[in-house]
Amino acid sequence: MTKMIADSTIEQHNGERLDTLRADYTRLGEQLARRGIDIETVKDRVAGYGVAVPSWGVGTGGTRFARFPGQGEPRHIFDKLEDCSVIQQLTRATPTVSLHIPWDKVSDVAELRERGNALGLGFDAMNSNTFQDQPGQPLSYKYGSLSHSDAATRSQAVEHNIECIEIGKQLGSRALTVWIGDGSNFPGQSNFTRSFERYLEAMKQVYAALPDDWRVFTEHKMFEPAFYSTVVQDWGSNYLIAKELGPKAFCLVDLGHHAPNTNIEMIVARLIQFGKLGGFHFNDSKYGDDDLDTGSIDPYRLFLVFNELVDAEVRNAPGFEPAHMLDQSHNVTDPIESLMVSAMEVARAYAQALLVDRKALAGYQEANDALMGSETLKVAFRTDVEPILAMARVESGGAIAPVDCYRTAGYRTRVASERPAATAGGGGIV
Amino acid sequence: MTKMIADSTIEQHNGERLDTLRADYTRLGEQLARRGIDIETVKDRVAGYGVAVPSWGVGTGGTRFARFPGQGEPRHIFDKLEDCSVIQQLTRATPTVSLHIPWDKVSDVAELRERGNALGLGFDAMNSNTFQDQPGQPLSYKYGSLSHSDAATRSQAVEHNIECIEIGKQLGSRALTVWIGDGSNFPGQSNFTRSFERYLEAMKQVYAALPDDWRVFTEHKMFEPAFYSTVVQDWGSNYLIAKELGPKAFCLVDLGHHAPNTNIEMIVARLIQFGKLGGFHFNDSKYGDDDLDTGSIDPYRLFLVFNELVDAEVRNAPGFEPAHMLDQSHNVTDPIESLMVSAMEVARAYAQALLVDRKALAGYQEANDALMGSETLKVAFRTDVEPILAMARVESGGAIAPVDCYRTAGYRTRVASERPAATAGGGGIV
Amino acid sequence: MTKMIADSTIEQHNGERLDTLRADYTRLGEQLARRGIDIETVKDRVAGYGVAVPSWGVGTGGTRFARFPGQGEPRHIFDKLEDCSVIQQLTRATPTVSLHIPWDKVSDVAELRERGNALGLGFDAMNSNTFQDQPGQPLSYKYGSLSHSDAATRSQAVEHNIECIEIGKQLGSRALTVWIGDGSNFPGQSNFTRSFERYLEAMKQVYAALPDDWRVFTEHKMFEPAFYSTVVQDWGSNYLIAKELGPKAFCLVDLGHHAPNTNIEMIVARLIQFGKLGGFHFNDSKYGDDDLDTGSIDPYRLFLVFNELVDAEVRNAPGFEPAHMLDQSHNVTDPIESLMVSAMEVARAYAQALLVDRKALAGYQEANDALMGSETLKVAFRTDVEPILAMARVESGGAIAPVDCYRTAGYRTRVASERPAATAGGGGIV
Amino acid sequence: MTKMIADSTIEQHNGERLDTLRADYTRLGEQLARRGIDIETVKDRVAGYGVAVPSWGVGTGGTRFARFPGQGEPRHIFDKLEDCSVIQQLTRATPTVSLHIPWDKVSDVAELRERGNALGLGFDAMNSNTFQDQPGQPLSYKYGSLSHSDAATRSQAVEHNIECIEIGKQLGSRALTVWIGDGSNFPGQSNFTRSFERYLEAMKQVYAALPDDWRVFTEHKMFEPAFYSTVVQDWGSNYLIAKELGPKAFCLVDLGHHAPNTNIEMIVARLIQFGKLGGFHFNDSKYGDDDLDTGSIDPYRLFLVFNELVDAEVRNAPGFEPAHMLDQSHNVTDPIESLMVSAMEVARAYAQALLVDRKALAGYQEANDALMGSETLKVAFRTDVEPILAMARVESGGAIAPVDCYRTAGYRTRVASERPAATAGGGGIV
Repeated sequence: MTKMIADSTIEQHNGERLDTLRADYTRLGEQLARRGIDIETVKDRVAGYGVAVPSWGVGTGGTRFARFPGQGEPRHIFDKLEDCSVIQQLTRATPTVSLHIPWDKVSDVAELRERGNALGLGFDAMNSNTFQDQPGQPLSYKYGSLSHSDAATRSQAVEHNIECIEIGKQLGSRALTVWIGDGSNFPGQSNFTRSFERYLEAMKQVYAALPDDWRVFTEHKMFEPAFYSTVVQDWGSNYLIAKELGPKAFCLVDLGHHAPNTNIEMIVARLIQFGKLGGFHFNDSKYGDDDLDTGSIDPYRLFLVFNELVDAEVRNAPGFEPAHMLDQSHNVTDPIESLMVSAMEVARAYAQALLVDRKALAGYQEANDALMGSETLKVAFRTDVEPILAMARVESGGAIAPVDCYRTAGYRTRVASERPAATAGGGGIV
Repeated sequence: MTKMIADSTIEQHNGERLDTLRADYTRLGEQLARRGIDIETVKDRVAGYGVAVPSWGVGTGGTRFARFPGQGEPRHIFDKLEDCSVIQQLTRATPTVSLHIPWDKVSDVAELRERGNALGLGFDAMNSNTFQDQPGQPLSYKYGSLSHSDAATRSQAVEHNIECIEIGKQLGSRALTVWIGDGSNFPGQSNFTRSFERYLEAMKQVYAALPDDWRVFTEHKMFEPAFYSTVVQDWGSNYLIAKELGPKAFCLVDLGHHAPNTNIEMIVARLIQFGKLGGFHFNDSKYGDDDLDTGSIDPYRLFLVFNELVDAEVRNAPGFEPAHMLDQSHNVTDPIESLMVSAMEVARAYAQALLVDRKALAGYQEANDALMGSETLKVAFRTDVEPILAMARVESGGAIAPVDCYRTAGYRTRVASERPAATAGGGGIV
Repeated sequence: MTKMIADSTIEQHNGERLDTLRADYTRLGEQLARRGIDIETVKDRVAGYGVAVPSWGVGTGGTRFARFPGQGEPRHIFDKLEDCSVIQQLTRATPTVSLHIPWDKVSDVAELRERGNALGLGFDAMNSNTFQDQPGQPLSYKYGSLSHSDAATRSQAVEHNIECIEIGKQLGSRALTVWIGDGSNFPGQSNFTRSFERYLEAMKQVYAALPDDWRVFTEHKMFEPAFYSTVVQDWGSNYLIAKELGPKAFCLVDLGHHAPNTNIEMIVARLIQFGKLGGFHFNDSKYGDDDLDTGSIDPYRLFLVFNELVDAEVRNAPGFEPAHMLDQSHNVTDPIESLMVSAMEVARAYAQALLVDRKALAGYQEANDALMGSETLKVAFRTDVEPILAMARVESGGAIAPVDCYRTAGYRTRVASERPAATAGGGGIV
Repeated sequence: MTKMIADSTIEQHNGERLDTLRADYTRLGEQLARRGIDIETVKDRVAGYGVAVPSWGVGTGGTRFARFPGQGEPRHIFDKLEDCSVIQQLTRATPTVSLHIPWDKVSDVAELRERGNALGLGFDAMNSNTFQDQPGQPLSYKYGSLSHSDAATRSQAVEHNIECIEIGKQLGSRALTVWIGDGSNFPGQSNFTRSFERYLEAMKQVYAALPDDWRVFTEHKMFEPAFYSTVVQDWGSNYLIAKELGPKAFCLVDLGHHAPNTNIEMIVARLIQFGKLGGFHFNDSKYGDDDLDTGSIDPYRLFLVFNELVDAEVRNAPGFEPAHMLDQSHNVTDPIESLMVSAMEVARAYAQALLVDRKALAGYQEANDALMGSETLKVAFRTDVEPILAMARVESGGAIAPVDCYRTAGYRTRVASERPAATAGGGGIV
């Protein structure tokens, strides 16, 4: 296996920190034992948890106003895979990569698959793109794609999605994620009903091309890039889509795609209850689809989402098998660092949710003891589970403090010398 | 028929204004004719339109901080019916009243029906109340009603809804509206999934008691009185309810019950498309469930909702038969005046939506001519349809300027002398 | 001193938990020492911290829809003081009570002061009330108070505020908090400029009556009870008020009084920078002025507010002396329990903010190392400081687990037998 | 004078519509006369009204996801000026252009000024750009500009603003607009207080370079491109800036830069009251800074803003002299068409606001007759003032129906043949 960070670097890093970690882990174990929790069991479940990294996430993101690239930006999917492997090597929490077509399109898919394998990475859901025009593309998506008023444009979008499935089959992927930007900027620009009918008709064609063991995830979003109406605007529409398409269709929840103040964890619960939760795009937000680092703004909200997931896991909710992926835009940080920290934040929320005393919680809920219901969650959330996460990493070859280790290893400086500097982008407005 | 305002008052009022109205109506007719629209057709449809008035709307509303009663507050449903009849008499746009149980409960329902008939009023949907405790009520709704963790409390709530149906049958009503405040104020207080299961189970019992020619409307609301989670929180959950219950179950849309920035007209379109739009609670809002007068804050949004309704009407959307009701809280105005103006605002939006050149609109939408799609709606909205509304009123016995006529008639002063002054309320916080 | 909970109850409670607490405290001390932090110093600062309890907070709250009282509701300010003393006795974090006039008005103010002292309670800011009408009040506040268009009504409101100062002087209070509900429900109802001019003119009269060693806190709020415009709607207007009034006038920040998505900690920083931060009304919210328990919805936001406060404390920001108060509505919990937990949550946020490595943080900020800036805050927030809080309580006579101890002591049951049951309220809408 | 549209085209266009317009104008005049309003006076004030067009507005906009260029995109400021002149020629409502440096930087400023004059265009406020990096720029704005932690970067940003003033002086401009994107994406990334101090210090240097007869407008924005905190985040901070800088500094209000649900017209009133309203960036929005066409989403809100402006105009509010500019992103329309329609929407709102019966309004406000206060505004808003706008255009050489006339003239097709096709942009995320 090809490793981007030398094992010795990680070993030395861990060596300097292991005694302290062991002491902290032992102490936390004792505290949890008092609460009737076996720390080893929690650690094993955390160790088994993984979240996919989006290939585009390792590049510096931007806004419509500007993009400020960093050093050593990946030039193509092979560079991106290397960056992704660093994240997995140090955190042991991101075993798969999610590709985006056409950004990650290559002439030799087998070579790509092999390179992934050599780097210890599998391939998660495929992502199609009908929200941009590509050079040489016959028909424009300016006014929509799968819901476009023109049948030929819809067909082109359908074909693109089928192509994504074909590439994914060769890579060992088993899911297609469809997010479209279709919508309108003016009242009157489009007919809501006709647009949704056309979208459903087009998606049925995509669905028909899905292999038996694949799933399709549709993703809703309140606004942007359309600013008056969006065809797949909320979980209500998304549920209707999944229902119309059939048993292989599920809803994807991006944490930043909701109206202000929305109770997202409740939407998660509803989709689980009705068998249509497909998975997540994790990130955090304060205003809109800010695509900030997961858990950086409201870590308790992230915990509450995982509280629902663990609840479903514990009671074996039928059809519950969500896909987990990060989806962030890294505008002011090293993307590798942000993705490592975010993967750990997701694992942290999972670990904290595992600590919830569910029997006590059910009792308080039954008795309408609101205060103790709240406190039961808070006690789990307040527990500093870092020793569990770190121990899970160490035991599978990762680093105790991934960001420190990454900086020490000098990876970014190394690739900066190999990859030519990118020029600043002007953003969409120019 | 009993009339609260003397015919002669209205006649004199109209007499002073009729020539001007006729001139304006004629001129508007000529302008509309240039656009290919027959003003008489529009007027007839407006004349045929009606919106229900809620019985509780004729009393002064309040907030959790305070309630400041006005003069001549209605003391009971018979006073309320008289107030409602004034609204209908002057505007000819509110032929029915929607009752609320237990607020409007009487010992002799037949007497109530007769009184309504005598005042020229029919009975719209019945409204149940399980968001408050009533004196002598065995079990409290403090922690919920139809979704309560306690089976006996749920049964009590189910029975209350069935009682509402029974009363409604005697009154000639044909629909039940169910809004509950159930939810939670703390993460952990309730289990989202179990609560929704219990709600569905309870509502199925209510549904089973529904006569064949009745419909049940469930109403969603983002928040308040519960401030962390609400059991029926949005149209997605509401749709699932209507679907689970069956063909007589529909979703009610209150314009103030959505998240900030929500595109409500799109939700209306979706519910129409999937055959589950039950009707509306009309009002306006800037922040939350403000219950302000319809059209007072964002008249274009109201128009856009009616644009969807007329679109569905024109293409004979299957199962399209929405119930229209006002639902407002009048804290600083005479409720009768607010309800008259609001009924006219709803009729205005309907009239404007009837003026939309739908053939042209469809063409612009097909051609992605966003600007002209927008302008097509704007031209209709900009048309001052007041002469149409006024002519429709006059021709059916109403007043040209209902608020002026009402003030001239001195109704409020008269009832103030008959009804004892109410004392100021302290609001919920005291 | 009069104690509502027997010392022996607390002693027994603590006795069963002290060994475990000492072990946890020692371990945490070791961990903090590794980070260069002396746990004793932190504990001492936490022990010195206090937050005021609002007298009205010990009664069950409500919404405009309903109020569901609990058992043993306090009947008057003397009952309320006893309830408040329980909170202070068990948490040692709430040494003062904030009164509300006229709700807490008594015939003998000296008796009230003595009773407070006997219960170990001081008197924090006085709160006036011109958002409700009181029985016998000559002029109504239906259309406003300090900004009313009628001069006599404004004078009445000014006099009431001056009366609050007079009562406060006798009680040893040194601040007046002014929150008004003045605003409008319709565009056109009031003239923004004239209303604000009148408000400023009236407040100048109140300000003139302020003793030299007093401060006045004005409180802004986006909406409710007015739903179109509010006279003191945001911190911008609030700052202008404090500036116009003079050096004894400051802005009060209620965490639930802002627009959706607002960055509240930034407003706190601005008010500190310009010398006008008066203090806080702590609570939590998801939608509006939900008045939920502090830290129950977004504990990280609370921490970020305290991060600003500790930052100002550390650098001795000029004029920085904020008043801290809880302001919550307890609709589904025992108010005493909610206030105890909330007082501890505030202390927790303070303790966590004290753990921030400010030198490292400043370095990361200077170097634009966004990720490490974020992590520096996160490390502090993630620390489970419960042993610090509990040790601070124990050492000053409080309980290790206040809610457990309170339930064991049976206080609520005892007062329920002494205080007659309250009847359910109907909320403001009836 | 150089004209992009032949006079004969406009004359023929108007010739076909003039009789109808005259009839409509006469009838409206009669109706307004009944309300005591002289239509000629209104028309004259509308004719005297102008709003600036932003040079960048004539190019197709985009989002961070994509940009879909249209035909005949302007290649440089000279093309842009021609497009702007079409807008002014047909609407007679946009006499000036607002430039953006460096996008509009030229080697020969005098030539630019002459070209503007030849096309009948003056030069409005200059706009600086420190939210993007330009090729060859020594220091990056990735982590901020005027508030950057690095003094050299701040100096570079100051120098750029001074350069904008210098260019503006040569063009006859008399104002500088400063909008920065500075802020942070993570709690802890930046120190709110230090950032604001640095910003103020830098702006004071810019202010010092301002000619005596110039004004500087600073612009606030809630979020984007920074997604956790923004240095100039709201009108409160903006007011503090204007106050700190001095009498030539004013606040600019962009209608899309506020928190959800914000009452913008009230902010406008406050800034007028305290002498700091600089002007507007007009557009419309539903979710955030959507930059949609003015009046396309909520025309009543636009009217309410103008209601404040006319109120200030009528009472001669001291220092009231706001600058009016459009600022929109045209993603799916021909920018020239959108700007023409938007300029007319702004003029429409102004005309409607002129129709408000201010004496009656003041009376209703004094009497707390909320309903009639609302109706007084509604009556003005409901008036279809199109004949006034069209007559004002015709009389000054513009077109009765500018969009129709523009399409007939074939301008876009003509420039499309002269200007090479632009390639689709990928948006900021690629």
